[in-house]
Amino acid sequence: MTDDPPGGFLTLGDLEAAAAAKAPPDVWEFVQGGAGEETTLRGNRDAFHRQTLRPRVLTGVDRVDLRTTILGSPVAAPFFVAPTAYQGLLCADGELATARASSAAGLLSVYSTLSTRSLEEIAAAAPERPRWFQLYLQPDVDVARRLVERAERAGYRALVLTVDMPLLANRDRQLRSGVAVDGPAPIGNGPDVHSPPRALPPDGGRFTLRVDTGATWDVLDRLREWTRLPLVVKGVLTGEDARQAVDHGAKAVIVSNHGGRQLDGAPATLEALPEVVAAVGRDAEVYLDSGVRRGSDVLMALALGARAVGLGRPVLWALAAGGEAGVARLLSLLAVDVATVMALTGRTTVAAIDRSLLGTPRW
Amino acid sequence: MTDDPPGGFLTLGDLEAAAAAKAPPDVWEFVQGGAGEETTLRGNRDAFHRQTLRPRVLTGVDRVDLRTTILGSPVAAPFFVAPTAYQGLLCADGELATARASSAAGLLSVYSTLSTRSLEEIAAAAPERPRWFQLYLQPDVDVARRLVERAERAGYRALVLTVDMPLLANRDRQLRSGVAVDGPAPIGNGPDVHSPPRALPPDGGRFTLRVDTGATWDVLDRLREWTRLPLVVKGVLTGEDARQAVDHGAKAVIVSNHGGRQLDGAPATLEALPEVVAAVGRDAEVYLDSGVRRGSDVLMALALGARAVGLGRPVLWALAAGGEAGVARLLSLLAVDVATVMALTGRTTVAAIDRSLLGTPRW
Amino acid sequence: MTDDPPGGFLTLGDLEAAAAAKAPPDVWEFVQGGAGEETTLRGNRDAFHRQTLRPRVLTGVDRVDLRTTILGSPVAAPFFVAPTAYQGLLCADGELATARASSAAGLLSVYSTLSTRSLEEIAAAAPERPRWFQLYLQPDVDVARRLVERAERAGYRALVLTVDMPLLANRDRQLRSGVAVDGPAPIGNGPDVHSPPRALPPDGGRFTLRVDTGATWDVLDRLREWTRLPLVVKGVLTGEDARQAVDHGAKAVIVSNHGGRQLDGAPATLEALPEVVAAVGRDAEVYLDSGVRRGSDVLMALALGARAVGLGRPVLWALAAGGEAGVARLLSLLAVDVATVMALTGRTTVAAIDRSLLGTPRW
Amino acid sequence: MTDDPPGGFLTLGDLEAAAAAKAPPDVWEFVQGGAGEETTLRGNRDAFHRQTLRPRVLTGVDRVDLRTTILGSPVAAPFFVAPTAYQGLLCADGELATARASSAAGLLSVYSTLSTRSLEEIAAAAPERPRWFQLYLQPDVDVARRLVERAERAGYRALVLTVDMPLLANRDRQLRSGVAVDGPAPIGNGPDVHSPPRALPPDGGRFTLRVDTGATWDVLDRLREWTRLPLVVKGVLTGEDARQAVDHGAKAVIVSNHGGRQLDGAPATLEALPEVVAAVGRDAEVYLDSGVRRGSDVLMALALGARAVGLGRPVLWALAAGGEAGVARLLSLLAVDVATVMALTGRTTVAAIDRSLLGTPRW
Repeated sequence: MTDDPPGGFLTLGDLEAAAAAKAPPDVWEFVQGGAGEETTLRGNRDAFHRQTLRPRVLTGVDRVDLRTTILGSPVAAPFFVAPTAYQGLLCADGELATARASSAAGLLSVYSTLSTRSLEEIAAAAPERPRWFQLYLQPDVDVARRLVERAERAGYRALVLTVDMPLLANRDRQLRSGVAVDGPAPIGNGPDVHSPPRALPPDGGRFTLRVDTGATWDVLDRLREWTRLPLVVKGVLTGEDARQAVDHGAKAVIVSNHGGRQLDGAPATLEALPEVVAAVGRDAEVYLDSGVRRGSDVLMALALGARAVGLGRPVLWALAAGGEAGVARLLSLLAVDVATVMALTGRTTVAAIDRSLLGTPRW
Repeated sequence: MTDDPPGGFLTLGDLEAAAAAKAPPDVWEFVQGGAGEETTLRGNRDAFHRQTLRPRVLTGVDRVDLRTTILGSPVAAPFFVAPTAYQGLLCADGELATARASSAAGLLSVYSTLSTRSLEEIAAAAPERPRWFQLYLQPDVDVARRLVERAERAGYRALVLTVDMPLLANRDRQLRSGVAVDGPAPIGNGPDVHSPPRALPPDGGRFTLRVDTGATWDVLDRLREWTRLPLVVKGVLTGEDARQAVDHGAKAVIVSNHGGRQLDGAPATLEALPEVVAAVGRDAEVYLDSGVRRGSDVLMALALGARAVGLGRPVLWALAAGGEAGVARLLSLLAVDVATVMALTGRTTVAAIDRSLLGTPRW
Repeated sequence: MTDDPPGGFLTLGDLEAAAAAKAPPDVWEFVQGGAGEETTLRGNRDAFHRQTLRPRVLTGVDRVDLRTTILGSPVAAPFFVAPTAYQGLLCADGELATARASSAAGLLSVYSTLSTRSLEEIAAAAPERPRWFQLYLQPDVDVARRLVERAERAGYRALVLTVDMPLLANRDRQLRSGVAVDGPAPIGNGPDVHSPPRALPPDGGRFTLRVDTGATWDVLDRLREWTRLPLVVKGVLTGEDARQAVDHGAKAVIVSNHGGRQLDGAPATLEALPEVVAAVGRDAEVYLDSGVRRGSDVLMALALGARAVGLGRPVLWALAAGGEAGVARLLSLLAVDVATVMALTGRTTVAAIDRSLLGTPRW
Repeated sequence: MTDDPPGGFLTLGDLEAAAAAKAPPDVWEFVQGGAGEETTLRGNRDAFHRQTLRPRVLTGVDRVDLRTTILGSPVAAPFFVAPTAYQGLLCADGELATARASSAAGLLSVYSTLSTRSLEEIAAAAPERPRWFQLYLQPDVDVARRLVERAERAGYRALVLTVDMPLLANRDRQLRSGVAVDGPAPIGNGPDVHSPPRALPPDGGRFTLRVDTGATWDVLDRLREWTRLPLVVKGVLTGEDARQAVDHGAKAVIVSNHGGRQLDGAPATLEALPEVVAAVGRDAEVYLDSGVRRGSDVLMALALGARAVGLGRPVLWALAAGGEAGVARLLSLLAVDVATVMALTGRTTVAAIDRSLLGTPRW
């Protein structure tokens, strides 16, 4: 990472604008769009905008330390690269660029079942830092098992099971743009790996809908038979489900509404976070993604009990805008922003970010 | 119903846009406009946007079943075609196209006193599925009685009495567009059938207004003398009136603000629903219309106690956009959307949609 | 009043649009503008938009009667023409047109101290109906007294003392448009009659501001010595002041923020109304103005305890749009709208409009 | 100050518009921009817009007196010129113009460590009125001490320590406009005086951020050793910090979010004010800045317990628009506006502005 280069990206908005200009229009709509009328997509940002922070002053902020641990692994900052599919649509190197940049920054990164590159290629690109593998359950259970075994073999340190996509949501913007939702790009992990299905239109007179991935909570028990990797459950928005996850052996849950891309009508993740934190207690770590764009967002989530937050779309912007260097720039910008907001609120360590930081929501 | 045809309609927004392009401008304003400043028209959508859903995961959603019953009749999904006047303005076949498409889809449909085609023609177009007849009271009581008797004879299975239109509201948009509000098209049920009246400007110095349809609740008792069809009361927004309807023999009530076309200032139907459900208890079924556009809207209404929801304007869009095929497409799109949202919230049957699905409103 | 003429005005919006096209731009800004950033101007409309109405159905609305009394005088409807200055800016006949149209409609009308025509001319134009005279206190107390005596002699039936204008507010829009705020037109009541003053810029180093009309509540006692006309106090927004008015002999108070033209930051009149009604009890009548545009607004105010509501800017629109015929059209349109909303909410008399009509505010 | 000159500035909006047209674009973005997404910048205005005022009438407002004292010094009005950096960017005379105009108006003014002119030049320009010096702590403690000693020597009457800028925030708008945030103009107080630092991008793999000004509360004790000037702490948004300030000897605190330029996510100052007032009690004076634009804003802050309010950006607008005459015009306009709102709410003295003036927030 370097200091502001002339002509460089100074804000996340610069990365987004550059990506919008470079990405093919249909890919751009795929990246930016949400489910339905995008109420939840907007709601995620609104929740961060409504929350206020109570800054403390003169606490002595001569050094601000962003370091923390995630499932025991030391990381340079309390944010990570969330899994997003098909990164090769944004930049030729795809996930390799992401892996190199996040590894160099000392950050955790998570890779999707639907990566453009294979999980082994990604592992080879950046061996030093913690990597996690995100799993979509597969119609053929053996395909899923082989993915898990490959991830463990390739040195991934945790398995992130996504549970909020039994099927693909209706995404109006994406449908209008013409991106075929069930497979916009080759899947690097092999031809037998599948994206979650769309709902099929019903046959005449019968509205019974077949969905192929009807997993229940015991799928966690099965996964624990397949692997010794810790399990992380991604896509939980209620205390009840968070508790279920922990009771079935999950070491962490990710409060996520899939970036507003699945259930339009789901609450903002910042609003769902407190009940998940309360339900889980000290039994597991809690992370949050969906809508994180600023250092202040990171602090709000941490103040409400998240241990770390994930970045989705911004990584895709950075890939399109500048490949590996773009991702490096993104991570540096966010780190500086987190540190700045910590200094401005009088916090010098991640541990000092607690509920006393939170003010009354705006209205 | 067929799978996505090339060039087909992929969202309700596509149907609306195609209709806007095809319908004559004055007809389009008639369809889209609401009463007054359209506060209630917007409020209907706002209420759905504010409500959040608490999705449950890993509940096993390998089959999602939309079937339910409405007044005992099995239907393929918990939504129905609400009555709308003058469908012939949007498509030459008018109500015949609606009847064929909704019947093929296994859905209930309701036809207006002010249909462009006669109730007998509609019945002949699609005899297999439940049809209901919507009644506007008439200045001449015998005209109303003959309509009821014809509907019963033609095999309509319930009588829907609209109670929120003793007269036509002031609809600014419609007035500006030049659609004559008291009779935009021929009425298929005969020349002696009338639309509800407009308020007449007062004579000099006297602001006493004559309205010709001053019915009271005992009109339900009279209707029960005329017919053995079950009575449904449409246009109720308070618990008190819902209770009155049930006490006068109604088997169901429809929480409706006439799509925002009558009383500007009326609450959103989603907001009025709970008090109606509480007042009625188990004594009648409750339905809701006005503003339903998405699968998530359907689930919200069902979660608050509605047994089914009605579709008004979207059917008119579909008729204008593609006639019978357009309506078929609309019903298929909504069915897939309902099923998708059920899967995404972890519900596989209509019976499983209850209040635990509802989160805190957004702000 | 006549039925919809071809090319006639069908909505208040038509009148406003026609007025905007006809009135000189600076006059138009004078009419439309409010104080400061126009927060209160917008707030008046927002309050009506937020309030919901609980419609009752099947109550038997074959006749809707708008008649009521205001301070004992029978009027054709529960709304009146509020006093507005300089009506001659909008139409050559000025207040004479207003007087003729409101008198023909059987409605109360109130005329400003700052009328373009003299109070005697106005009285002569329309002798049959109740007229009230609005008084701005004058720097020279004898000028005020002569105005009161002239009004009583000319048959005005009440004296409306405006108390919210000890000086003119800062009205940004008006200042920008170049209308000289202290006297945009000749004052018909004579050259010694003055508009309320503007605050004068302070002299160097002293921010003590001279205001010339520093009246206190005992001014009401003085007015009662000058005249036997009943006193109405206009421009009250708190229960405390309403009580003071009654205790000093006022027979009625008008809850008004001067159409958002005086104190930017004042509450919406609909929000201030309940505390005034509670403070006054049965000891005086309460009216409301500022932002009334629709029949539903009238019902909301009446439901909260107002006996009648005043119309300000719409009368100016109507004058500009069509002179006397324009005002007649406005009054007819509003009467039909009030009657329509009464029918749609199941109320056939003004007395039946009570708090049970009010639903929960929208958000 | 003079009466409205032909072609003069009639509103603060006129001053802002003139400044926008005259200032170089990058300077303008520097002036107008806030931190991050400018949520707090907008929030400051929203808070004033939401608050309502309860006007009292007929209280006898023939004279309105704006005079008050600030830390014992008589001033002509309860507002002052807040410290803003680099006034020379807006007008060649910079702070000298501000000093002359505010002194002539009998108002307190505060000058920044980062003034374009030296504190001695400013003092010489306008010796008669109270002036305060604002201090940014310096990397070299001796530099800070010399600044304090110079200020005391030059007759400044209080020392305002800014505590909300241990480092510069990320200001997206400013970054995009290309203004180098760490030094847009020469600093008049000498080449060894520094602006607060920006956060530096972290080195590879380490996100520990160095900040050079990690002061703690005992800095106030040190300042009291250096000078007998009363200490004012600027940039406090919590009751806890306000109490700390008082306990460390501060005579006053300024509730400020630095005009929305530092912590995006901080509450509006009007919302933070009550808890600061409650925490401080009678032990210190409390002032407020950030977003004050209207007389009604001044009254709202005073009603909630502020003794006076500061003006930031508007002074920069006035400087750009008209130099010393522009600032004089600004101060006169605001004084007239404050006096007008006092008259319209029935208050003739600053002491009469209390909580009874405040109504319910708007929504």
